Amino acid sequence: MALSTMIHNHLPTALNTDVNRISAIRPHQEVVFHQPKASKASNRGARRLAESLSNLLHLHIEPPSRKNLQHSNWDLFFEEKHNTPTTSPKQMIADKWRDIHGSMDWVNLLDPLHPWLRREIVKYGEFAQATYDAFDFDSFSEFCGSCRYNRNKLFEKLGHGKNGYKVTKYIYAMSHIEMPQWLERSHLMDTWSKDSNWMGYVAVSDDEETRRIGRRDIVVAWRGTVAPAEWYEDFQRNLEPIGIGDAKVEHGFLSIYTSKNESTRYNKSSASEQVMEEVTKLVQFYQGNGEEVSLTITGHSLGGALALLNAYEAAASLPGLPVSVISFGAPRVGNSAFRDELDGLGVKTLRVVVKQDLVPRMPGIVFNESLQRFDDITGTLEWVYTHVGAELRLDVSSSPYLKRGFSPLGFHSLETYLHLVDGFHSADSAFRSDARRDVSLVNKACDMLVDKLRIPHCWYQLSNKGLVRNEHGRWVKPRRDPEDIPSPIGEACDYALKIEGQESYQMLYAS
Amino acid sequence: MALSTMIHNHLPTALNTDVNRISAIRPHQEVVFHQPKASKASNRGARRLAESLSNLLHLHIEPPSRKNLQHSNWDLFFEEKHNTPTTSPKQMIADKWRDIHGSMDWVNLLDPLHPWLRREIVKYGEFAQATYDAFDFDSFSEFCGSCRYNRNKLFEKLGHGKNGYKVTKYIYAMSHIEMPQWLERSHLMDTWSKDSNWMGYVAVSDDEETRRIGRRDIVVAWRGTVAPAEWYEDFQRNLEPIGIGDAKVEHGFLSIYTSKNESTRYNKSSASEQVMEEVTKLVQFYQGNGEEVSLTITGHSLGGALALLNAYEAAASLPGLPVSVISFGAPRVGNSAFRDELDGLGVKTLRVVVKQDLVPRMPGIVFNESLQRFDDITGTLEWVYTHVGAELRLDVSSSPYLKRGFSPLGFHSLETYLHLVDGFHSADSAFRSDARRDVSLVNKACDMLVDKLRIPHCWYQLSNKGLVRNEHGRWVKPRRDPEDIPSPIGEACDYALKIEGQESYQMLYAS
Repeated sequence: MALSTMIHNHLPTALNTDVNRISAIRPHQEVVFHQPKASKASNRGARRLAESLSNLLHLHIEPPSRKNLQHSNWDLFFEEKHNTPTTSPKQMIADKWRDIHGSMDWVNLLDPLHPWLRREIVKYGEFAQATYDAFDFDSFSEFCGSCRYNRNKLFEKLGHGKNGYKVTKYIYAMSHIEMPQWLERSHLMDTWSKDSNWMGYVAVSDDEETRRIGRRDIVVAWRGTVAPAEWYEDFQRNLEPIGIGDAKVEHGFLSIYTSKNESTRYNKSSASEQVMEEVTKLVQFYQGNGEEVSLTITGHSLGGALALLNAYEAAASLPGLPVSVISFGAPRVGNSAFRDELDGLGVKTLRVVVKQDLVPRMPGIVFNESLQRFDDITGTLEWVYTHVGAELRLDVSSSPYLKRGFSPLGFHSLETYLHLVDGFHSADSAFRSDARRDVSLVNKACDMLVDKLRIPHCWYQLSNKGLVRNEHGRWVKPRRDPEDIPSPIGEACDYALKIEGQESYQMLYAS
Repeated sequence: MALSTMIHNHLPTALNTDVNRISAIRPHQEVVFHQPKASKASNRGARRLAESLSNLLHLHIEPPSRKNLQHSNWDLFFEEKHNTPTTSPKQMIADKWRDIHGSMDWVNLLDPLHPWLRREIVKYGEFAQATYDAFDFDSFSEFCGSCRYNRNKLFEKLGHGKNGYKVTKYIYAMSHIEMPQWLERSHLMDTWSKDSNWMGYVAVSDDEETRRIGRRDIVVAWRGTVAPAEWYEDFQRNLEPIGIGDAKVEHGFLSIYTSKNESTRYNKSSASEQVMEEVTKLVQFYQGNGEEVSLTITGHSLGGALALLNAYEAAASLPGLPVSVISFGAPRVGNSAFRDELDGLGVKTLRVVVKQDLVPRMPGIVFNESLQRFDDITGTLEWVYTHVGAELRLDVSSSPYLKRGFSPLGFHSLETYLHLVDGFHSADSAFRSDARRDVSLVNKACDMLVDKLRIPHCWYQLSNKGLVRNEHGRWVKPRRDPEDIPSPIGEACDYALKIEGQESYQMLYAS
């Protein structure tokens, strides 16, 4: 069967396509562990699954022999796991990209989750993850709050050099004083910026990826925060109008998206203006070349909220452009009129949500839930926060690699999300045993993996927090490579080359 | 003036040497900040000192000019500091090593602190520090509790390759079940050892260092713990006889020093037996060569307590051998009879103590202090814990680099001790402004440095906690270099070379 025929069989041509037919002819033979059907039994099932973890992990034990003695059973397990590639082979999805991006609202593609869609969700999730991995959190660095690398090196530095995309612009956002916890601030006096944080980037697919995915794909990835769930509570009951209709969105998110100030260095224009200028330029350029173009906006947590605002604006100002949002653990953003307007603008939103994660229930975990009854009485609750789009719902207890127990940070972590997406087949089947994504990544910044995997918690860290020993034996913080110093006037790299060494400092400290 | 004459002038030939004469002709011109004489005024003085920190650190500010704009004042400061060597030049101390090692009980050498003595204290402190820096704390490593490097690479790996000493043996200790908090244990089932921890090492001076310091110096460095002060409380009221007289020492310390068990792999002999066998062998070898030999035992915290037990045993079994102890932040170990016997054996002990550190007041911070009055009445408190030897008393508030505020972990940290030794001139003068030791080291494992220094807290860490990306893109824990795998049958390095690859694993998992 030709690839295009295969995918055709899997993607619905109408909303009422037969679900069973879809799942019967899935192109990959995926190994799943069968488990009793959902509901109350699933808790017991999950527990049993957890208990059988050691069996699962000892699948390949051979009787000990002289030759095998140097390895424990675990060593054998790890050896096999460690020598598997971390990604599934890339498929040619050119014919079906519109369906994968929600043209049919993902009906019949989410449960069971189509493998091609799964792979794309992980791809976009990794764009969002890059905004965390490259962020300078060091409050003793004068570059705290910036990206550690210039845009040309970003993907390569993070090991994604072959993802088929090229970053074209970095986006900066500032925040009003009423949201002091939002900004990562340096402890130092002289910094690259006192008001702004690196907030994401715009990237575009290269020719090869464009051929594979069937269109020139412009990606916007928004950075989230590592703030605790309580942080989102502060945002409650503070809706603000957006657009010309009844749509309202949370004030804090909108403020981050639209704030600007002439006295700043990186936000003389707002995040909104920066991203829209770049996206518009790229759309016009590639459409001018006669290419089909799409815009895919992604983000985790706060980044997911910004993605929606960005999609709303982009769809309104670039009519006819297919705009989709793939968000991870995003909080609610606006009222039902906002949702309706997004629908009307044709924005397709896939919200990936972990059942145990509190953040997608913010703002309004108390608010919305308790007012649901009120809604039944009055019928008018347009101002209550509402989720938009389709939902892919994941469950921490589905993974035999994850600890049980309460871990709000772990439940919310984007790497946990990507792990669960990678292992998800359907709501009533267990974790895919042939899921390939590197499980170790889950523990990058949390403590979610079972001890037997031997992966330290929060392991994503620099050697000696970036200090290096100089020629005199002293531990010092090295100067940042000039080409990685952020520049307000455009591209860090060109900038550094243009103005050279000391003057870059001059400008750096000028504001 | 010849060097030997100079030192002669500084070292007392009798106990009642004139202190003023000593301080008047100190061989180094040391820059100290004068400060009102001790007592209550010193607190205020310390505060004032702290407040004037920014002035101190801005000493080299020039009026801003076009050329200077690229640096903030701090950059200038850092640039100057960062380009200073971290150690004072080595002096030829061959003639006076006995005085430096306490033959005169350090009378008139401690306040003001003689620079040659200061340099030696730091040297021995760094031997103790090495036991922390090289320790494998990773509870997900099968080598948790061992040294990360084999003995031949230890100093080089830690950047002390030129310290003039060579490690000849590693020491392991086990603990009884009643002290579970003492041992660092792996979470794993298959480990290098379930009962023992690497506890220190024996080293010996090379020919060049031997010429400089006037004798063949055997060093024993004992590892301490990172346990909180409360841990030591558990040891209270549990004295046990040692030797044949009335001397008693704390049961827990003695247990760590003397425990052995045939069923273990690394403690078929006790720490005591291991260290004494090696020291005796070395002493006999070098004395057999007609060389003058000394034994210097060092340790921090628990390591300081073990150093005393070790010194007691060594002095008793190797009569005539000069034995000295330089301990840092060590708790009390035994009763006054123990102290008297140590004196009688000729053991010279220099206890370096930070005034704010609680550990040197353990066991018995409540116990001893409250019974002091009881002592006055009965006159018989031989069983109460007693400190031995001379004391070099340091004060956290003397350093303009250290934060004020309560930080029990920071006060107790060996790096804090070494920083304060390096900056100490006398009790009534301020921190030496020309102290050269790298200040950044203080924050290795605590948060003691003022923010302005821009040194992250707890920065001593491996890149990604030791995980590396394999050729498939997976983050894995690499196998330890076979030559760094500990061996119970002697020297890790020889061992690994002898038995090769897989068999070493066989033995490793055999127990």
